[in-house]
Amino acid sequence: MTRLEPTIDPLALLGAGANVMDLSRPMVLGMPQSPNHPEFRLSMPRRHGDVVRADGGSAANDLLISGTHVGTHIDALGHVSHCGSLFGGVDAEAAQIGGRLSSHGVEEIPPIVGRGVLLDVAALYGTGPLPGGYEITPADLDESLRRTGTVIGPGDSVLIRSGWGQHWDDGESYLGATSGVPGIGEAGARWFAERRPVALGADTIAFECLAPARGHALLPAHRVLLVEHGIYIIETMALEELAAVGATEFALVVAPLHLVGATGSPVRPLAVLAADRG
Amino acid sequence: MTRLEPTIDPLALLGAGANVMDLSRPMVLGMPQSPNHPEFRLSMPRRHGDVVRADGGSAANDLLISGTHVGTHIDALGHVSHCGSLFGGVDAEAAQIGGRLSSHGVEEIPPIVGRGVLLDVAALYGTGPLPGGYEITPADLDESLRRTGTVIGPGDSVLIRSGWGQHWDDGESYLGATSGVPGIGEAGARWFAERRPVALGADTIAFECLAPARGHALLPAHRVLLVEHGIYIIETMALEELAAVGATEFALVVAPLHLVGATGSPVRPLAVLAADRG
Amino acid sequence: MTRLEPTIDPLALLGAGANVMDLSRPMVLGMPQSPNHPEFRLSMPRRHGDVVRADGGSAANDLLISGTHVGTHIDALGHVSHCGSLFGGVDAEAAQIGGRLSSHGVEEIPPIVGRGVLLDVAALYGTGPLPGGYEITPADLDESLRRTGTVIGPGDSVLIRSGWGQHWDDGESYLGATSGVPGIGEAGARWFAERRPVALGADTIAFECLAPARGHALLPAHRVLLVEHGIYIIETMALEELAAVGATEFALVVAPLHLVGATGSPVRPLAVLAADRG
Amino acid sequence: MTRLEPTIDPLALLGAGANVMDLSRPMVLGMPQSPNHPEFRLSMPRRHGDVVRADGGSAANDLLISGTHVGTHIDALGHVSHCGSLFGGVDAEAAQIGGRLSSHGVEEIPPIVGRGVLLDVAALYGTGPLPGGYEITPADLDESLRRTGTVIGPGDSVLIRSGWGQHWDDGESYLGATSGVPGIGEAGARWFAERRPVALGADTIAFECLAPARGHALLPAHRVLLVEHGIYIIETMALEELAAVGATEFALVVAPLHLVGATGSPVRPLAVLAADRG
Repeated sequence: MTRLEPTIDPLALLGAGANVMDLSRPMVLGMPQSPNHPEFRLSMPRRHGDVVRADGGSAANDLLISGTHVGTHIDALGHVSHCGSLFGGVDAEAAQIGGRLSSHGVEEIPPIVGRGVLLDVAALYGTGPLPGGYEITPADLDESLRRTGTVIGPGDSVLIRSGWGQHWDDGESYLGATSGVPGIGEAGARWFAERRPVALGADTIAFECLAPARGHALLPAHRVLLVEHGIYIIETMALEELAAVGATEFALVVAPLHLVGATGSPVRPLAVLAADRG
Repeated sequence: MTRLEPTIDPLALLGAGANVMDLSRPMVLGMPQSPNHPEFRLSMPRRHGDVVRADGGSAANDLLISGTHVGTHIDALGHVSHCGSLFGGVDAEAAQIGGRLSSHGVEEIPPIVGRGVLLDVAALYGTGPLPGGYEITPADLDESLRRTGTVIGPGDSVLIRSGWGQHWDDGESYLGATSGVPGIGEAGARWFAERRPVALGADTIAFECLAPARGHALLPAHRVLLVEHGIYIIETMALEELAAVGATEFALVVAPLHLVGATGSPVRPLAVLAADRG
Repeated sequence: MTRLEPTIDPLALLGAGANVMDLSRPMVLGMPQSPNHPEFRLSMPRRHGDVVRADGGSAANDLLISGTHVGTHIDALGHVSHCGSLFGGVDAEAAQIGGRLSSHGVEEIPPIVGRGVLLDVAALYGTGPLPGGYEITPADLDESLRRTGTVIGPGDSVLIRSGWGQHWDDGESYLGATSGVPGIGEAGARWFAERRPVALGADTIAFECLAPARGHALLPAHRVLLVEHGIYIIETMALEELAAVGATEFALVVAPLHLVGATGSPVRPLAVLAADRG
Repeated sequence: MTRLEPTIDPLALLGAGANVMDLSRPMVLGMPQSPNHPEFRLSMPRRHGDVVRADGGSAANDLLISGTHVGTHIDALGHVSHCGSLFGGVDAEAAQIGGRLSSHGVEEIPPIVGRGVLLDVAALYGTGPLPGGYEITPADLDESLRRTGTVIGPGDSVLIRSGWGQHWDDGESYLGATSGVPGIGEAGARWFAERRPVALGADTIAFECLAPARGHALLPAHRVLLVEHGIYIIETMALEELAAVGATEFALVVAPLHLVGATGSPVRPLAVLAADRG
């Protein structure tokens, strides 16, 4: 059972109605995904007409193959280790015996139903995306937060818009292997950690700043957030529409699949906005 | 964008806080699943220590293989056809060319954020599950609804508790191949269709009444709901805890994965209850 | 390059022609397979008509998911470890870093093109299968070999017929969870190891004797053969036809898939018999 | 049962020994494969140490996911249709009901144990590969065959070396999306069809000539061979070593996996050469 923060009740924003905004990317063969993870593929083993029941009924079904860090997804704490340890000093080697996590798996993430805040860092610098490889600074975060006119409290989820999602339809640009990808680094991660959010999200595939042509050489923000502070990370989010309507506070719902022992899960994050927004 | 029904605002139930209840079953190798669908399996292609970054960081990841009608899941309208047609008279053969649905795929389901109602049919007859093969009648539904002291309105989601979920930990009993499984039939489906819910859910694997030793010979409720009335079906839900706290009305959130062209999706349905419940 | 034993040339048996006998089981969804291994499943992501080329051509293709110890298959030496070591004292932990074997993977098995010998142990006791749980003794092996009128030399492959393959069409019987399964045990494995064959095969799913209702509690023959002596094991072979024609010596061809780092591979073993046999 | 051609007995080439040459490519994540087919991936769900038996024994196993036209593989006749028909006029739509081929599946290919002939077309033009997009002509085939000093008879298998296999280690070059790929076209296919081989193989991914930057726009050789003449096609073969030893005639063994209803299968083709070759 997850308790909403009583002092910050985004659901009270809802009056006679609400708008629900989908923050996920469509999952389809060939979409941008990290080469570190198994390819997303959906096949249809049974089609309509393959088996027809006596009354004329028939059913089609699917076979899904995918990494769990593919499409819009959330990282469980056990996704990353540092010097052999997971969050809270859990021994990574011991936790993974049997081929699934006995500790810090994605099923331990309480479904998120709480206050969300959008930090539109890209908007500080114009209308387009931040440049590839740009590291979002604590000063950027301060200024973005100031513009929202609100604060970040413990248990909130914060979504960081770099504008990089505008590259989604061009897979190679989105992956940014040569250009790098904008995002926070270690300093930004520590800025957030002080504010004790439950989760952070971004509109990029690896969440954090990737230097040009370096790949995922180092992932310091993952270390700070997942390993040191137990803060979940949501990647590959669709944040353009949320920014376009000027949303800064909303109810955020993220319900990872109930995959026992998994290191992550594809998700369909939803922002619930007051009826007069969106 | 999904608009909540203005006349029935479950979110207004929420005062200074809320309780979030998980209505999904844990997904694990060997859990009960229909033999018609690909086996759920999670593997860990990369474990901690396989690749270690220069700073001592390492990551583990997963490979997920599954049917989309496995674990707690939602049926897209295109899952079932009748005499060659999907909902709205869409030609099933044409819709499935290319091996995924070009119409009525699961990505067309608007994420559900709305009012949920629990009909505890099992409670009419005692504390245990309804018997295998029992067909829930319209009279049962009338009486269950009467006990809630509320009504079902257009756009609501209704969850039908048969108590069969008490068999979850015994896979063979839960599948009910020889015993049959309780649920609604054609008459019950028509009772619901008149009330125009957006979705119906149940605590069984196939949603509807299965006669003993007949398998999935006929699925009339699927036809009535998916093909004739465009009402989504959610299966394999965990409803015992919801019933135990006496919940009858709540906010229901169901966010199917964004699987373009799929016939269904595993989901993690959440009931949001007023702070003094659950 | 594998060199046939010059002193034993089964290919010289071949005169103006040869008969090729398939020693594999058909791979189909639902066939008997060990619950320890991923389910075999073949899906058709693309069907004829999904994409049609300008000239009227179209193609269908498949998606294969399977364990590698499923259907008729061969075990690589790295499949089994004992007290942390693989064959030759290789450290199992080190060999599996990265999620595939860097040593003793199936790609290290030289394709087998050599002399095969059939030991028809079942025929010692009648026409049906040996009983479930029966452990084939060295005396059985001596007598079976005597009946063939030949010897087993270094580099040969020996196929052991228990008759259990007659249960193939009844999956539960074939798996033998309650009945046990006949096969050699530690003593039989040592009997073979002295004769230095390159591979041993059998018509059962786990090759060795399984006591009733014990599952795969212990697998001593795997230890003796794979770990101590570097002898490959072929399981789930179809040997009934070979026995029916009275074949005792033949050329055996087993070409594992070229799966780098795998612990095993499905195979299609072929017996090539002289033209007047079979 | 497949009968070797009595008039051409490659096995008679074998004297006191034989050399076995592997004509397959190693299957590994990231190897060149056609984007039309599911990605090859091998995962290790169970590693040594995950489960340890009472005696200290442990086992590792694999999960294989792959297209069946991936790595070195053979095309079943049912892989390609023309204007709705498979070989022999079989209706493609009817044959694929149920999601696997009821006719012309890969299990209908009799395992190939017969005479193989290598046509080294690349050697006509020098030591490197033929140029991308080069269509091998009937004149090329005539001249290549003349150089072998032998003939092609009914039931033989013929392997066509374009030299393109020298690009194997550079995946993009090997796929040849921009350069095109050398191979036979419709005229070459008809040249072969007259000689009634059982199978043709090549060292390229799609067997036939691909024009630069055209992809698999048209596949006329597939039509002529698979649909019109019932001749199997083997792709992505490793032929460099065979050519290097000057082999022109040999025993060829190709044993497709016993995949019921599949459109193709990965294979490990073997050339068995006389003892003094290779």
